[in-house]
Amino acid sequence: MEIPKLDHLEKMHGVERVINESGIFKLVSKEFSDKPTKIKLINNVEIGSKKLTIIAGPCAIENKKQLIKTVEYVKKSGATIIRGGAFKPRTSPYSFQGLEKKGLELLERVRQITGLPVITEVMSTEDVKLVAKYTDILQIGTRNMQNFPLLKKVGKIKKPVLLKRGMSATIEEFLLSAEYIYSHGNPNIILCERGIRTFGKMTRNTLDLSIVPLIKQISHLPIIVDPSHATGKRELILPMAKAAIAAGADGIMVEVHTQPEKALVDGNQSLRPSDFSQMMTEIALVAKAVGRTI
Amino acid sequence: MEIPKLDHLEKMHGVERVINESGIFKLVSKEFSDKPTKIKLINNVEIGSKKLTIIAGPCAIENKKQLIKTVEYVKKSGATIIRGGAFKPRTSPYSFQGLEKKGLELLERVRQITGLPVITEVMSTEDVKLVAKYTDILQIGTRNMQNFPLLKKVGKIKKPVLLKRGMSATIEEFLLSAEYIYSHGNPNIILCERGIRTFGKMTRNTLDLSIVPLIKQISHLPIIVDPSHATGKRELILPMAKAAIAAGADGIMVEVHTQPEKALVDGNQSLRPSDFSQMMTEIALVAKAVGRTI
Amino acid sequence: MEIPKLDHLEKMHGVERVINESGIFKLVSKEFSDKPTKIKLINNVEIGSKKLTIIAGPCAIENKKQLIKTVEYVKKSGATIIRGGAFKPRTSPYSFQGLEKKGLELLERVRQITGLPVITEVMSTEDVKLVAKYTDILQIGTRNMQNFPLLKKVGKIKKPVLLKRGMSATIEEFLLSAEYIYSHGNPNIILCERGIRTFGKMTRNTLDLSIVPLIKQISHLPIIVDPSHATGKRELILPMAKAAIAAGADGIMVEVHTQPEKALVDGNQSLRPSDFSQMMTEIALVAKAVGRTI
Amino acid sequence: MEIPKLDHLEKMHGVERVINESGIFKLVSKEFSDKPTKIKLINNVEIGSKKLTIIAGPCAIENKKQLIKTVEYVKKSGATIIRGGAFKPRTSPYSFQGLEKKGLELLERVRQITGLPVITEVMSTEDVKLVAKYTDILQIGTRNMQNFPLLKKVGKIKKPVLLKRGMSATIEEFLLSAEYIYSHGNPNIILCERGIRTFGKMTRNTLDLSIVPLIKQISHLPIIVDPSHATGKRELILPMAKAAIAAGADGIMVEVHTQPEKALVDGNQSLRPSDFSQMMTEIALVAKAVGRTI
Repeated sequence: MEIPKLDHLEKMHGVERVINESGIFKLVSKEFSDKPTKIKLINNVEIGSKKLTIIAGPCAIENKKQLIKTVEYVKKSGATIIRGGAFKPRTSPYSFQGLEKKGLELLERVRQITGLPVITEVMSTEDVKLVAKYTDILQIGTRNMQNFPLLKKVGKIKKPVLLKRGMSATIEEFLLSAEYIYSHGNPNIILCERGIRTFGKMTRNTLDLSIVPLIKQISHLPIIVDPSHATGKRELILPMAKAAIAAGADGIMVEVHTQPEKALVDGNQSLRPSDFSQMMTEIALVAKAVGRTI
Repeated sequence: MEIPKLDHLEKMHGVERVINESGIFKLVSKEFSDKPTKIKLINNVEIGSKKLTIIAGPCAIENKKQLIKTVEYVKKSGATIIRGGAFKPRTSPYSFQGLEKKGLELLERVRQITGLPVITEVMSTEDVKLVAKYTDILQIGTRNMQNFPLLKKVGKIKKPVLLKRGMSATIEEFLLSAEYIYSHGNPNIILCERGIRTFGKMTRNTLDLSIVPLIKQISHLPIIVDPSHATGKRELILPMAKAAIAAGADGIMVEVHTQPEKALVDGNQSLRPSDFSQMMTEIALVAKAVGRTI
Repeated sequence: MEIPKLDHLEKMHGVERVINESGIFKLVSKEFSDKPTKIKLINNVEIGSKKLTIIAGPCAIENKKQLIKTVEYVKKSGATIIRGGAFKPRTSPYSFQGLEKKGLELLERVRQITGLPVITEVMSTEDVKLVAKYTDILQIGTRNMQNFPLLKKVGKIKKPVLLKRGMSATIEEFLLSAEYIYSHGNPNIILCERGIRTFGKMTRNTLDLSIVPLIKQISHLPIIVDPSHATGKRELILPMAKAAIAAGADGIMVEVHTQPEKALVDGNQSLRPSDFSQMMTEIALVAKAVGRTI
Repeated sequence: MEIPKLDHLEKMHGVERVINESGIFKLVSKEFSDKPTKIKLINNVEIGSKKLTIIAGPCAIENKKQLIKTVEYVKKSGATIIRGGAFKPRTSPYSFQGLEKKGLELLERVRQITGLPVITEVMSTEDVKLVAKYTDILQIGTRNMQNFPLLKKVGKIKKPVLLKRGMSATIEEFLLSAEYIYSHGNPNIILCERGIRTFGKMTRNTLDLSIVPLIKQISHLPIIVDPSHATGKRELILPMAKAAIAAGADGIMVEVHTQPEKALVDGNQSLRPSDFSQMMTEIALVAKAVGRTI
């Protein structure tokens, strides 16, 4: 039992540690495995390899037509995984909460049409089985990074889990949440930086790219970057996607909408299809400069 | 349907609003009810009235002896509600996770012995019924403030809910989480400020007392303050408890342990029994100065 | 020479220390003097004693009539020191920058009329002598907390200095800035908490009252609280002033304006004269509850 | 006179604005000049052009030998401007404060030997003339971003000024500080992002790269990035330098020391000479990928 050691950690709250010197990370640490984790999905998609992972799609699944049109476009431009929200965590109870099961069915349809793996968020322990049935990757959102019953539950399935950083989570807390998933049996974890909350007002959050090389020093898990939620502004997504890749990220996740101005959720931070294809062209050059491909 | 209005809110992310001018808060707002909400519990305990609410007890329930000794002491010194954690949200999967059901049973025993209402945290939708059976108030912790399925679930029961502010939640987000509970059917909500995360390193969090008068302007819900988690330091709890009451809080919640140095969780921020009785003496004077009693 | 020890501190950036265990604070620390510093001014005003210090007056000195009317009112209601800005640090170069020397002359007139000590901000090493000639206390503003040449300069005069905390300064940085003043020869230092910058949007800053008891543990210097700049909202000043005193502050500093809606600077956070007298009535009760007087 | 408009800004504190829609930035804005500002220095060095600016050298000038050895190395590896601190802003009064005038003389010697332009920090209005005499660019440090008398003073000379972002400054505040310099007569301004203060503990600050494309949208001024102070960790400088360039920065500024473990200031964040030459090789590839050269 590591209780003394871990309690020690909590009591030292606020103390900068030499990276993992006290062994607080176990299964997710480089000490446990110095080989980078690679996660294999259908269609030969592999996360954590030389080829970057590009996850794209609408923030929320709104209807079949919107979804199909978007995913066909992003596939053509080089996306390797399709995203789309069926269960939406919304600040207000009166906001659109997602199509739920119907959204999952549409996502399954997308998977059949494109042949690409799909990812969607799961918000409740009670939905884990259902969501796992329809998707290739389960996303744990920023608000649930420390929803420990949910982490334990997705730890007990085998489907890969994309874990988003909490909006004010430290790196230790982020990796210990991954440790919850791993220690319950599921080693297929992808970390995702999506911006932290600071005093800044011109962006939705502050993209903290230094976490990318820090994670690479401490952990064998892959890490991707979500510049859409990090910035909240369409025009910042392209430069921040390039910066993320230059910093060593294993991929990016972006929101794309055919008509952002009509989007039910997060239209301001959704790329138009033409923005997305331009982004793919430009990040290919940066990827090459750092020894990666798209 | 308020969807357009609310989406408008989310798009304006970062915009300071004249308080509730756009009507984003409904059921929790003063526009809905200008009479302060009072929550009645057993033993004539009432939250939100002139008499302040004093919630005290150990951070985690460790064993029967420790618990009974602590609660008898705090009752004698004037605590009106007993706290004790049975399910503990811990940063590391290897830390003590609480006694779970056995902890709830001990809490029920405390209720019988003292005649006082009890409060404990619920972390999972699947445990809501169980926890509601054993306790008088369900606590939603800071990490679950935006666990929307959990908010909806506790919205469907009638037991009072104490909602802790997320560690980087704005006041709007905090009240909209309360709105989730209220709009699903449960009006018995107590808000709780417990410190926000800032750059400060000498305290565990930064106690944001200005939220107390702000909440009083916007909402009819009672708000109490937790100086234990806010400061993380025993010696700061007493001055911050006095400050909270001077600012207009409806009560305080503190951790008490008979042997803090041996506590399994959060010993550094637990009052000793003698600290607690001194606190009660001193806050009584401040309470009187602002027209309240203990 | 403590250089090695101090460099050690800077290298440990981010490390929580047991309070001053490594001796980084010298002259400002309790180890140096465990007797609280008291600062004596004209009219028997003493900062740091049982009687609280109440500093009040307009944010900026605008004209003689406005100033005289305001100070007569606040004196009548119990203010013991008069504030008024002659040199104003403004975010934009196009904003009103203060009356400068003419403002100082008006302040001197106020001193003659009321018999009360006066305080005003000094922003430049070149103005230190001039400002010292006209006032009883020199204020170093939040933007200059680490303007080291200015700290050294006010360290070489004998006039008391009120040092405001930087808007994102840690307690160590705050006390080390006071150490700059003390170590250059001036022990007459008053600390002032005025809110820190966080993600919060409903208040101008976040008032961090836990610094008050922390400073009392580490240092012998008096500390007062400025709820006007901390909150930026008139209606929050009274509850936060009461909270500050309950937390153990040695006094408060507030902005008062006879017509806040016409103020050239910071009208939203200025008390009306009637607000000020109500505040004095209410804080007198809280002061008594914590063993102080006004 | 724009006073009403600007006061309006300050009253709206906390409000997200459509970029410069209210015209708060004048001379530094793209509305004033849509041609990017280019700053010409000796040796055909030009800041703000296609060729990136690489500023390198020791944090503090310690002695002639150390300085000459370092600058010869960084020149050989491609640095185009030499940095070196003569006046050091130190948190503690007991830390090494810099060689002051002697440091400036050594910097002049470096300029003669290498033929490269030099930059050093100026902390006091009284030193502006002296520092301007010895250097090609005057640096205003993060702690002085809102030292308005200093901004006005460097606004009255013609030497280029590198303005570092305050550690908790918003973009509006940053650009308005540049506006102070410009409106007092000096248009030769280089902005510098160097990390903001957040809750993060594994890095000294949090590098906020999204400011780079934001500045490019609002202003015609060049912006460079300082990954040394932003991260405080040697091993993060290379990935963050690449990310900065991918995001569109006009250059980078890094600290280099021949023996970091013996550095008087900031050794942990100083590159070794070999790190620097590797960085130059790698950033050249990223520069090419985004249409720039080094």
